[in-house]
Amino acid sequence: MASTPRSSSSVGNRKPAQPIIRLRFKCENMQRIGAFKARGAFHAIERLKQEPGWLENDGKRKGVVGFSAGNHAQALALAAKENGITAHIVMPSTTRPYKIDATKGYGANVVVCGPKDREAVAAQIVNETGARLIPPFNHPDVILGQATVGLEMQDQVQNLDAIIAPCSGGGLLSGVALSCEGTGVKVFGAEPEFEGADDGRRGYYSGNRVTEVNTRTIADGLIGVVGQMPWEIIYERRLVSGMFAVSEVEILEATKLILERLKVVVEPAAAVPLAVALFNEEFRSLVEKEAGEKGWDLGLVLSGGNVGVEGLAKLFS
Amino acid sequence: MASTPRSSSSVGNRKPAQPIIRLRFKCENMQRIGAFKARGAFHAIERLKQEPGWLENDGKRKGVVGFSAGNHAQALALAAKENGITAHIVMPSTTRPYKIDATKGYGANVVVCGPKDREAVAAQIVNETGARLIPPFNHPDVILGQATVGLEMQDQVQNLDAIIAPCSGGGLLSGVALSCEGTGVKVFGAEPEFEGADDGRRGYYSGNRVTEVNTRTIADGLIGVVGQMPWEIIYERRLVSGMFAVSEVEILEATKLILERLKVVVEPAAAVPLAVALFNEEFRSLVEKEAGEKGWDLGLVLSGGNVGVEGLAKLFS
Repeated sequence: MASTPRSSSSVGNRKPAQPIIRLRFKCENMQRIGAFKARGAFHAIERLKQEPGWLENDGKRKGVVGFSAGNHAQALALAAKENGITAHIVMPSTTRPYKIDATKGYGANVVVCGPKDREAVAAQIVNETGARLIPPFNHPDVILGQATVGLEMQDQVQNLDAIIAPCSGGGLLSGVALSCEGTGVKVFGAEPEFEGADDGRRGYYSGNRVTEVNTRTIADGLIGVVGQMPWEIIYERRLVSGMFAVSEVEILEATKLILERLKVVVEPAAAVPLAVALFNEEFRSLVEKEAGEKGWDLGLVLSGGNVGVEGLAKLFS
Repeated sequence: MASTPRSSSSVGNRKPAQPIIRLRFKCENMQRIGAFKARGAFHAIERLKQEPGWLENDGKRKGVVGFSAGNHAQALALAAKENGITAHIVMPSTTRPYKIDATKGYGANVVVCGPKDREAVAAQIVNETGARLIPPFNHPDVILGQATVGLEMQDQVQNLDAIIAPCSGGGLLSGVALSCEGTGVKVFGAEPEFEGADDGRRGYYSGNRVTEVNTRTIADGLIGVVGQMPWEIIYERRLVSGMFAVSEVEILEATKLILERLKVVVEPAAAVPLAVALFNEEFRSLVEKEAGEKGWDLGLVLSGGNVGVEGLAKLFS
């Protein structure tokens, strides 16, 4: 078990690290539905189609079931629609209306339920219809779909040294980690630290998966806790080399830099890896030590760009 | 002389046009310094270097002079710096401090003057130093530099039918028009209509170049009036097929769409061509009539993305 690194605010008077880092950005904000989630949903459906008997057993009509208040809802609805498959999407009543409308816009049957009843309602639909459950991250085909982010980065960046991916439920991070196994490319996870949102980091350094978090971080795409299956990849198989957390101010500053300098729109969650690379002293010390004068080519996953202009205005006014 | 088309608000009860348009975006917001202006500045300097005697006559040390409160300042400063050439940039005292800092950051000698004295101060520097004046748009080499936007669009889009470019001083629009001469690709200009900002359109349809405008349009990159040299290309040589104007609300809506759906950051000026394509009935009727059921592949120049997050917050809060 690794020891807990000090958080960036506890560095004190030590001289700041001066790592040499060349940044490479993977723009999943420009992915279909505006986030990497499309990958997992399309891959899971593709695998379903290849499953012996599924098509013959009227699988397309019976369809798929997902539960999500966010990007997985739209991703699964879109992937189902493009394959002529029925989609039932269970969304909590707290979901913003425009997200419900967008999901309906992809032709899904949206079922609104109480915030805590999602999984139960989804299970009920499975029982009643024979539809197949495709959860947002705790599923091997979903994780393998997200893994294509890492495969593409290895193709697109010559001599890639490492990747930082944001971590919420852990589907993206564990997928990227799997894709890099045996390649020598190191993978790190990034989280907000506000109100305990760094559940993945705390679990990783304590050896016990954290199963509940209640945080109002501005990186609202990262409020989930790491699922069991991602945990096995991230922690138990040690395919992730470290987890790092950053403050709200650091996330906001990284978001601003991406908007103003890269000229691409990201939601705050997507800026968390850049915040780690720029502001987290533990991470920067590690790169300084491991990369030396040669430096690192560091891939950062810009995981999504689903923030409205009103949301941007609220962040920066 | 063409007749003045009705503005989009005067269409009345006529049935809206239903043109078939496939949109292609040229992302000059991702150009160096965040706007197409880099093209004109780099090209003008390249031509200067090739001018017989300029190098031998100590041209690099004598340098270049530009006057600008905006993107041309940074573009010329950058182009000069990369070529080891002295740059004197005259900026009005009303320029935002961060723009002055950015220009100094490229190593330019920034001279701040009264808002109306820019050209006089620039002329004085030319006299005193022997530096060469490179104005923001009223110069053949600057216009030909901007023309590369149009050349690239012709290469990048198969069967391109038309291009809409924003029009302020007219360097970009006239350059794109020149690049399309004899190709069959039609070129149109787009402007805000607020407080007479559509000087190019009014001049084009009246036959008299408008030489003064005072507008507070949100598309603050388009407050300038068309220069004499662009005017000759746009109007006298008829290389531009039409000029169209849109309202502030339409510009804001187009800016929102680009940010939320394309996930790229643009300043409002860059969204004016999309506003024309989506909301201007004269333009849409024209496409419906000329393109028919085949539709048009329409290129839109996203001219720049130099708006800070505070500026975005102000636009959308």
